[in-house]
Amino acid sequence: MRLALAQIDATVGDLAGNERRIVERLDEARAAGARLVLFPECAVSGYPAEDLLLKDHFLADCRAALDRIAEHTDGVVAVVGFPERAHDVFNSAAVLADGEVRAVYRKMHLPNYGVFDEVRYFQAGNQPAVIEVDGVLVGLTVCEDVWQPGPPASLEALAGAQLIVNISASPYDRGKPARREQMIVQRARDYVAAMAFCALVGGQDELVFDGHSFVCDHDGAIVARAPGFAEHLLLCDVDPSATRRGRLRDTRHRVAARELEAGVPTVARLRQAPALAGAQPVAPTVAPFLDPDAEVYAALVTGLRDYVEKNGFDHVVLGLSGGIDSTLVTLLAVDALGAGRVSAVSMPSRYSSEGTRSDARALAENLGIDFRELPIAAPMGVYDEVLADAFADREPDITEENLQARIRGNILMALSNKFGWLVLTTGNKSELSVGYSTLYGDTAGGFAVIKDVPKTLVYRLVAVRAERDPVSPIPETIVTRAPSAELRPDQTDQDSLPDYDTLDAILELYVEEDLGREQIIARGLPDDAVDRVIGLVDLAEYKRRQNPPGIRITSKAFGRDRRMPITNRYRG
Amino acid sequence: MRLALAQIDATVGDLAGNERRIVERLDEARAAGARLVLFPECAVSGYPAEDLLLKDHFLADCRAALDRIAEHTDGVVAVVGFPERAHDVFNSAAVLADGEVRAVYRKMHLPNYGVFDEVRYFQAGNQPAVIEVDGVLVGLTVCEDVWQPGPPASLEALAGAQLIVNISASPYDRGKPARREQMIVQRARDYVAAMAFCALVGGQDELVFDGHSFVCDHDGAIVARAPGFAEHLLLCDVDPSATRRGRLRDTRHRVAARELEAGVPTVARLRQAPALAGAQPVAPTVAPFLDPDAEVYAALVTGLRDYVEKNGFDHVVLGLSGGIDSTLVTLLAVDALGAGRVSAVSMPSRYSSEGTRSDARALAENLGIDFRELPIAAPMGVYDEVLADAFADREPDITEENLQARIRGNILMALSNKFGWLVLTTGNKSELSVGYSTLYGDTAGGFAVIKDVPKTLVYRLVAVRAERDPVSPIPETIVTRAPSAELRPDQTDQDSLPDYDTLDAILELYVEEDLGREQIIARGLPDDAVDRVIGLVDLAEYKRRQNPPGIRITSKAFGRDRRMPITNRYRG
Repeated sequence: MRLALAQIDATVGDLAGNERRIVERLDEARAAGARLVLFPECAVSGYPAEDLLLKDHFLADCRAALDRIAEHTDGVVAVVGFPERAHDVFNSAAVLADGEVRAVYRKMHLPNYGVFDEVRYFQAGNQPAVIEVDGVLVGLTVCEDVWQPGPPASLEALAGAQLIVNISASPYDRGKPARREQMIVQRARDYVAAMAFCALVGGQDELVFDGHSFVCDHDGAIVARAPGFAEHLLLCDVDPSATRRGRLRDTRHRVAARELEAGVPTVARLRQAPALAGAQPVAPTVAPFLDPDAEVYAALVTGLRDYVEKNGFDHVVLGLSGGIDSTLVTLLAVDALGAGRVSAVSMPSRYSSEGTRSDARALAENLGIDFRELPIAAPMGVYDEVLADAFADREPDITEENLQARIRGNILMALSNKFGWLVLTTGNKSELSVGYSTLYGDTAGGFAVIKDVPKTLVYRLVAVRAERDPVSPIPETIVTRAPSAELRPDQTDQDSLPDYDTLDAILELYVEEDLGREQIIARGLPDDAVDRVIGLVDLAEYKRRQNPPGIRITSKAFGRDRRMPITNRYRG
Repeated sequence: MRLALAQIDATVGDLAGNERRIVERLDEARAAGARLVLFPECAVSGYPAEDLLLKDHFLADCRAALDRIAEHTDGVVAVVGFPERAHDVFNSAAVLADGEVRAVYRKMHLPNYGVFDEVRYFQAGNQPAVIEVDGVLVGLTVCEDVWQPGPPASLEALAGAQLIVNISASPYDRGKPARREQMIVQRARDYVAAMAFCALVGGQDELVFDGHSFVCDHDGAIVARAPGFAEHLLLCDVDPSATRRGRLRDTRHRVAARELEAGVPTVARLRQAPALAGAQPVAPTVAPFLDPDAEVYAALVTGLRDYVEKNGFDHVVLGLSGGIDSTLVTLLAVDALGAGRVSAVSMPSRYSSEGTRSDARALAENLGIDFRELPIAAPMGVYDEVLADAFADREPDITEENLQARIRGNILMALSNKFGWLVLTTGNKSELSVGYSTLYGDTAGGFAVIKDVPKTLVYRLVAVRAERDPVSPIPETIVTRAPSAELRPDQTDQDSLPDYDTLDAILELYVEEDLGREQIIARGLPDDAVDRVIGLVDLAEYKRRQNPPGIRITSKAFGRDRRMPITNRYRG
């Protein structure tokens, strides 16, 4: 049986656009001889639609779109994810055939952890489902359903399903594509069933969906895999008789299957005209996984591009200081949007070094992007005057440093307001964690591209990009110079923070792993640094709450993922 | 049996402080002759502790605090809410007696809607619980458990409980105190059982817990009620024989009770020395509910005071324009903190009228707060110069308006940085809804006091406060002047928005009720205004995402409550 997995980039709320995209892929798959076409979880609505799902008229509109899609299923069966408005709301997979919705499977396991809030919106289904397509029994599951061993997939396999399909919207984090595939491959082996994993791709606010749809046989061998971070129609032929043969050799489940007996109801038998005899077999794609850092780089490009495009921006602007962070964001922006859609602004103060200023200019020239220099000495002077009386008997301190950052934020926002550009902020996760940033200053902007990228990874990602071209566009001194905010004379980040290797190690344990002080010290990290970092992380919660959204690439990002109270007296 | 309800203001994460507070109230209750003392849901940890609950060491620390509290239960039984670390995590009520934890009831209904995310953190219990105290059978429930009719409370009553206690952390919204009491009173009548509702009080980030603990008899008559928005130890005597007599007259549940038969296990029989004979009966408090607007005013004062105090600020500062919004925030700040802890700054531009400037000054003088005037003409001029080249061929537009607001934000933040003051922002819900605000400008600050207060309610709240004193401190022109942002000549809010009565009516239906365009128009609102407002609300989601937290007083606030994607192409 020829299978098509439509790895599409659905946009939340864009019901007309998603419908069009689905129908196009359906036509394309039919033309390629596919008998069964899969679309991702919530392909009709986009995912996660969040509180749109509390609007009854939105759910009705989703159903209307689904019914229209069904009209295009002459001669082909489609499985399409949608939020189902029934006596309650379900996260469902519709089976479309013969021009109508022939069956609906309702997701049984609703994730409500990490970035997921599905119990807020959905009722859980309680009924595994198997359909018959061209004589092949196909079990249906939605995303989380296969992240837990057991039902529904196990029951569907016991009831005879030779192929288990999983339609999914599975958010990316570092290394997850391979881990996820490994898990599903193990399910195939456990249930002795071929598995087809059809994934959403693209960015949605803080989340990136990496795609990497694939098909494996009942023995876990990869038959086909779509590339990550791009739309793709993955075609392959699955041989259901291979599953049958496998089960004759591997009878682990025979007792359980007999006990099931009456079995899982086959909710729909969809008999079409048999596939054309003698059709050419497809040569399936098996796209490779990327190296770990290149994978993160690709995720960031995808997340940035989709945020910009889906929100209708033509152009982005950022402050380019000549430091490593703004360099990375510039590179990502150029790769996501093209050089013609990126403006960089250097805003030197009297503390900016000639080195960073010229590096900023050189990078911009090498990349061919719009570049301008707007010095901030004059605004700094006038604020000093305005505040002279109020600050009469006070020494300069962090206040004046923050004012520099805020003047820069004002200038970027003025450009944004005047020209309709999206401001990209350039803070990394290490800074954001310890509050090493100025609210309404360097955090001012619409999208915080690298907010979930630790500083040590920032360097590695710049290296990934530097190696791509024969001649790197990145001035070497950007990489080799000691990091500095350049907000006072001769400042470096390490004046007030541990070295970044130590900092990032502590942050990973504290933020991503939820370990406490003692446990982190027991891992061999210096107790003074641990105390200092934990204190800073806790204190900076109020700042993070007002930061723009940015792309999640670790197993725990600030934002949707790590949800800490601001008012909180617990330390560690 | 003498009952004490300890309506306390627990702070999230302040395990030592909460423990001390609980022990003090326990001693006080024992001294007053109480036999059973109730504390709110999660009294040990504060509520909601959010992702602190993912830290295993935090849960262990909560248990250690609970065990120490138990040591103070000689001669008295306490029911104390805590997050329970077992094979999973439960939202539990501990029964403390004789110096130890004698039993634990685990919350059975976990709310995961609105502002609640309990399924993210807790496993649901499955076992109703009845304890025996001085021969009285007492059923235990935690918060949401009684918001649904039926188990566990119904089962506990059928098993003989004469008193059902509910320990709670129930967030405030307009009118909820009376609605909540009405609901619990109905449960008392349905189950023919006295009910004791012991509530958390105080502010926690965006939530305010209003208290209003109370006791009613089996017929729903209010026996005692604590005041709202303040800590209180509510004492009263309950007569369990009244419940028995009620059940002899009212046998609705007799059949169900017989079927239950084996009944709900009594998890702990706690026999103390009998209560002292001849003890004086207590004269219980029955505090009245406040009028609706005064109730909101009190909630705002509570939420603001607790945010400031629990986060350790001594002083607040705000921009006082002489408009109605900043006037209300100033009044709230003075009532929450006292005049000596509030600074107001007038930052006039060339568009500020003499009327608003002098009103600002008069209000500050009447209230006796620190007041200063810092004009922003000079910074406006210098930004114009810095941006002259970039904006060469462009007319002035919203960009220059936003710069004014951002200069003001910078000045307030500079005062905050220099003196450690918390900046209060003054935007109301109507503005926030339609994006009538400047990011990093008037939205810059630590706490958005009235962000959930619609404009029409702003006026009513100022009126509440004006009527309190014999001579109102509020200049009359503040209330009578047409609202204006004063960012360009002769501007008023109604240049670009519908009148506020219409705007607020649309917003309530769209935001709080989740209605769509057609449904709102069908309620009689003008379609052009509906289209315009809906479009503005959808578009402003990105701004709201970066706003500071503020106090929730409606049934749906932006923030924890209304969770919309930014990237969203669905309109309406």
